Amino acid sequence: MQSLQEKASRLSGVAREDAFAIDDGTNLYQKLGLQTFIDLSTNFYNRVYEDEEEWFRGIFAGSKKEEAIQNQYEFFVQRMGGPPMFSMRRGHPALIGRHRPFPVTHQAAERWLHHMQLALDSVPSIDSDSKIKMMNFFRHTAFFLVAGDELKNQKQGVPCKHAVSK
Amino acid sequence: MQSLQEKASRLSGVAREDAFAIDDGTNLYQKLGLQTFIDLSTNFYNRVYEDEEEWFRGIFAGSKKEEAIQNQYEFFVQRMGGPPMFSMRRGHPALIGRHRPFPVTHQAAERWLHHMQLALDSVPSIDSDSKIKMMNFFRHTAFFLVAGDELKNQKQGVPCKHAVSK
Repeated sequence: MQSLQEKASRLSGVAREDAFAIDDGTNLYQKLGLQTFIDLSTNFYNRVYEDEEEWFRGIFAGSKKEEAIQNQYEFFVQRMGGPPMFSMRRGHPALIGRHRPFPVTHQAAERWLHHMQLALDSVPSIDSDSKIKMMNFFRHTAFFLVAGDELKNQKQGVPCKHAVSK
Repeated sequence: MQSLQEKASRLSGVAREDAFAIDDGTNLYQKLGLQTFIDLSTNFYNRVYEDEEEWFRGIFAGSKKEEAIQNQYEFFVQRMGGPPMFSMRRGHPALIGRHRPFPVTHQAAERWLHHMQLALDSVPSIDSDSKIKMMNFFRHTAFFLVAGDELKNQKQGVPCKHAVSK
């Protein structure tokens, strides 16, 4: 079976080494600082919650914008070399498990990345090298979650077995 | 809704602060070193693959022991202050997503912890303070995965909706 990682690379077009270049050498948290991550997530979710595409905006309708912002920047900080802010408050990131309620389709991943690219371009404290590293990480991760979402459609031991015939 | 984190604390009896004391002050990877983590996971899986309880041993029957050992120590190293060995090879830990194929019940969590306690006690390079921190982390995490496993039984948007009546 193809691993989640391999599937994420195939779907995203981002090789593993490029996706995890955020771990090479430069500590992005130390380089960019907490406020940059707060600005990035605020800019991103301002776009998402005002998206003209209702189908995408609707995915987030059940969550408060302020919480979405905090969850996101705390995860980014933790994953990019800063203190484990996310885990101290919410435990393991468990990315696939926590995205389980949401339809993480190819189309949704691309829309997420569209807004994130605009957000990265709107935060002046993010230099172009960091931007490339982060975007590769985000692109790979978005499609890692698409791969994770597709697990939902796989046959489970028990719960879905009578749902085959419509 | 109760969060995964809260549910993990309730089921495990380990408060969040205690579970993530692995992040406080001491870097456990620097303190213990790579070989200790390899020894721990090797000792642990030797026990698991020879478990007299067939129902538990059977959970691991589809995986190669050497791979299980490597996956585990690489994750521990990454999570406890060392280099991101796991992610460089396999991507995000995605603990809940990756445990999806397995029945992570209360009973299985307790059996896992039973073997892990014995493994911790069998590796002489692990001091008692580190052992307590790690066991709290493991106990909380085991029940975090039990909480994650229970998500499988929740109603999904689409796939299971015709499966209600038996």
